[in-house]
Amino acid sequence: MERTMIEGLGDRIGETVRISGWVDVRRDQGKMVFFDFRDRSGRVQGVCLPGSSALETAKEVGKEYVVRVEGVVHKRPEKNVQEGKQNGDIELEVKSIDILSRAAGMPFDTDADLNLDTLLDYRPLTLRRPRERAIFTLQAALVQAYRNSLIRQGFMEFQAPALVGSDAEGGAEVFRVDYFNEQTANLATSPQLYKQIMTGVYERVFTIARVFRAEKSATTRHISELTQMDFEMAFIEDEQEVMFVLEEVMRDVVRDVQSKYADLFALVGTDLPLVPEAPFPILTLREAQEILGVSTDDPDLEPAHERGICEWAQREKGSDFVFITRFPTHKRSFYTYEHAAEAPHSRGFDLLFRGLEINSGAQRIHDYDVLVKRIEERGMDPKNFAFYLQAFKYGMPPHGGCSTGLERLTMKMLDLDNVKEATLFPRDMNRIDVLLHGTDSGNIKE
Amino acid sequence: MERTMIEGLGDRIGETVRISGWVDVRRDQGKMVFFDFRDRSGRVQGVCLPGSSALETAKEVGKEYVVRVEGVVHKRPEKNVQEGKQNGDIELEVKSIDILSRAAGMPFDTDADLNLDTLLDYRPLTLRRPRERAIFTLQAALVQAYRNSLIRQGFMEFQAPALVGSDAEGGAEVFRVDYFNEQTANLATSPQLYKQIMTGVYERVFTIARVFRAEKSATTRHISELTQMDFEMAFIEDEQEVMFVLEEVMRDVVRDVQSKYADLFALVGTDLPLVPEAPFPILTLREAQEILGVSTDDPDLEPAHERGICEWAQREKGSDFVFITRFPTHKRSFYTYEHAAEAPHSRGFDLLFRGLEINSGAQRIHDYDVLVKRIEERGMDPKNFAFYLQAFKYGMPPHGGCSTGLERLTMKMLDLDNVKEATLFPRDMNRIDVLLHGTDSGNIKE
Repeated sequence: MERTMIEGLGDRIGETVRISGWVDVRRDQGKMVFFDFRDRSGRVQGVCLPGSSALETAKEVGKEYVVRVEGVVHKRPEKNVQEGKQNGDIELEVKSIDILSRAAGMPFDTDADLNLDTLLDYRPLTLRRPRERAIFTLQAALVQAYRNSLIRQGFMEFQAPALVGSDAEGGAEVFRVDYFNEQTANLATSPQLYKQIMTGVYERVFTIARVFRAEKSATTRHISELTQMDFEMAFIEDEQEVMFVLEEVMRDVVRDVQSKYADLFALVGTDLPLVPEAPFPILTLREAQEILGVSTDDPDLEPAHERGICEWAQREKGSDFVFITRFPTHKRSFYTYEHAAEAPHSRGFDLLFRGLEINSGAQRIHDYDVLVKRIEERGMDPKNFAFYLQAFKYGMPPHGGCSTGLERLTMKMLDLDNVKEATLFPRDMNRIDVLLHGTDSGNIKE
Repeated sequence: MERTMIEGLGDRIGETVRISGWVDVRRDQGKMVFFDFRDRSGRVQGVCLPGSSALETAKEVGKEYVVRVEGVVHKRPEKNVQEGKQNGDIELEVKSIDILSRAAGMPFDTDADLNLDTLLDYRPLTLRRPRERAIFTLQAALVQAYRNSLIRQGFMEFQAPALVGSDAEGGAEVFRVDYFNEQTANLATSPQLYKQIMTGVYERVFTIARVFRAEKSATTRHISELTQMDFEMAFIEDEQEVMFVLEEVMRDVVRDVQSKYADLFALVGTDLPLVPEAPFPILTLREAQEILGVSTDDPDLEPAHERGICEWAQREKGSDFVFITRFPTHKRSFYTYEHAAEAPHSRGFDLLFRGLEINSGAQRIHDYDVLVKRIEERGMDPKNFAFYLQAFKYGMPPHGGCSTGLERLTMKMLDLDNVKEATLFPRDMNRIDVLLHGTDSGNIKE
C-alpha cells in the first residue's frame, strides 16, 4: 500500500490508508491507546480500539518511535471535532503498527521552555519541536524568496570561495587554515571581492556564501560562521539603485512568507513585518541622530540607537524597515565610494529591520587609481590585492551592492531573542555542535 | 535617457538609444571607427561616421573600456546583414561616447587558446571571453534547475555548516582551522551527518554546501574546495527510491539547460547530453566488470573502467548516464546500509555521466545499535559522534540520499578537460587565486 501524507487524510474518509511517521504523543485511556502521529506534512490522532490486533504493538510504542501504521480514516462525531486544528475533524482507527525505529526516552522535557544551551546541546531532537521546525522552514522560504526576487530582477548566481589567500583584507577576525606545504590560508569573512570581480563580467550577480568571523564576541547577535546573501550590480548611477533593488527583494520576501507561512508566524507568536505602501524611509546618519537627540559627531549608530530609530520608523512611517545613509567614509570598507558633494561621507547605507542592522551596502569605487590609493591610505599593500585589482585595471563599470545576513534576517523576521535560535548548527567561541573542551558553559554570555 | 540592453536594440530601429557596456572590439577603417559593444545581454556593432562629434572620443577608446554610448539604431542594407549573428541586421550609429572606465592593454592574447595557468592567473579577465562566460552561466542554470527539481519533489533547503568539530570522520584529507582558545576545528569534507540529522526532522532535505578536501591530488578531477549538492530523504523502502529522485533531478536539469541554453552548448562546442526515454541503465558492479571483461574481484571501478562503461551505456542504451550498484560495504562510508540478501555488498550506488562519477549515494543505516557497531568496527569512537547519534537514538526513519559535485557535473555537461575550467576560483595544492609562494607552476600536473 502506498504511503498517504498525513495532511491528505481528510480526503480519504472511510478508506484504509498507510501512514508513516513519528509518535508525537501517546495516551493510554482505559483499554484504548491514543496516539498523535507526526510526519512532515502534519499531525493526526490515531486510536487503537479495545480488541484491536494492533494493541499489543501499541503498548510497546512510545514517544518518538518511528512507525508505519495502517488504519481506517473516520469522520469524528460533531461533538468531538477540534476546530482550527489540522485533521481536527478526523481520527485514524489503527489496524496495524510496524515499528521502523525505536526511541529512548527524551533527555529533556519536550514541552518546556528550554534554555539556549539545552536547545543547542540536543539540536537534532529539539528541532522536532513545532517552534524550532517552524524557524527553519521559514528560513528556507526566506532564502528561496530572496533568490527568486534577484533572478526575476536579472541577477545570476555564482559560487564564492570560502578559502581565501593569506593576505586578505581582514586581521584579527580571520580564522587561519593550515594549507598545503606549510602555507596558511584564511576563511573568507565576505564574498565581497569576488562578487565585484563577477560584476565586471556578468553585471548583476548574487551569491549565498558561508562566511566566518573569528571575533571574540559573545552577544545575542554574533556567530562565528554565517550565511551571507550578497548581490552586486553594475552600471548604476549611485547607491540608490542598489537600495531600490534591495527594497524590492525585501518586499518580495515578506510578500512570499506572508502568503505561504502566516501560520508559522502565529505559531512562533510573532507579527508579520510592517511594510509601508510608500518607499522604505531613508534617513542620513545625521538625520537619525537628530531624531534620537544624540550627538551628531558619532560615526555610527549604537545598538540602542538602531532600536530607537526602528521604533521611530514603525511609529511615524508604519515601516519595520528603515535605511540609514551617509556614514563617514573612513568607517566603511576600503572599497566604499565617497559622496563627492558630501565628503567625508560615503555612498554606503545600512538597512535596519526591527531594531537591527540586517544589511549593509554601498556604491563601490570602480576607478583603478582611486582604489589603489585607498588601499594604500588604509595601510594595506596593493600587491596583496593584485588578483582583485585586475578587474579594475582592465575596465570596471560603476557598481554597487549589499549583503544580508540570513541568520539575522531570520531572527528579526520571527522576533527571536538570539541569532543562535535562527542558526541550525551555530558555531561560537565555546561551541561547535557540542561545547568545546576546556570551555565552561556557565561562562557563556548570552 | 534610460539604458537599453543590447539584446533589445532590434526593436528600436530608427530611435535614439543609450547603451552601456564594454568595448569588445575596435576597428579603424579610413575615417570611420567601428566598435563591437558588449553588455550582459549581447553584442552589437557601432560605427562613428566621418565628421561625427563622437569621433574625437572614439579615437581614445580601446578594447575593454567601459562606455556609455548614445546613438541611432539603423537597419543594415540587405547585403551587409550577418545571418545567424545577434544584432547581425542592425548597426548603431554612434552620436556620443562617455568613458566610464579606462582599460590597460590586455595582458594576454584574448583570442588565443589559453593554457590553464594563464586562464586562472587572469581569471577576472579571462571570464570575459565568450567560452568562459558561458561555462558559469550554464553552471548557474544547473544549480537552479537542480534546486527547483528537488523543491518540486518536496525537499526543503537547509544551510550546512562548513566548520566542524575536531573529531570528524575524516583524517589526512581534512583541513585544520585554528579555532578559539587554542582549539582546532576542521573544514567539512561533506554535509553528510547534518543532512541525516535534518532528515530525522524534515524527511526530505537538500543543501548546496561548500566542502573541502586536503587530498594531495593534482589530477584533472580534483580541487580542494568544491560545491556539493546533497539531498537526503526519509521513509524509503530502499536505495532505488533515492536513485529514482536523482534520475528525475538529472532529467529536469538536462531538460532545463537544453531548452534555455542550447546556444551555450554550441558555443562551447559540446553536444547536449544523451538522455534515454527508458530509465537510466543500472548495472551492478559485477555486471559492469563482466561487460568490461575485467576482474570481478576489484572492489571499485578504475577511472578507465568508468569511461569504458559509459561508452557502453551510450552505445547500447543511448544514455550518457549509468548507475552502478552493489559496491562492497567495506569500500563505502561507515553509514552505508548493507544489502541483507547480497552481503557483503551494500545499498550504495554511483551515478556515472560521460565517463566520470558525478554522484554517489546510498540507503543509510538508521538503526542506532547497528550504526554504533559499525563506527566501532571502523576503529572510530562513537563518543566523537554523540551529537549525530542523538538523531538515531531517539527514532530515525529509514532513509537515504546522495551527493553531486557541481564542478564535476558542469565539467562533464560541457565536456571540459579539467574540473578547474568548471570552477570560478579553483583552489588546489599550488593555487588560491594566484600561485602560492614557494610553488613552482612548472611542476603543476594536469
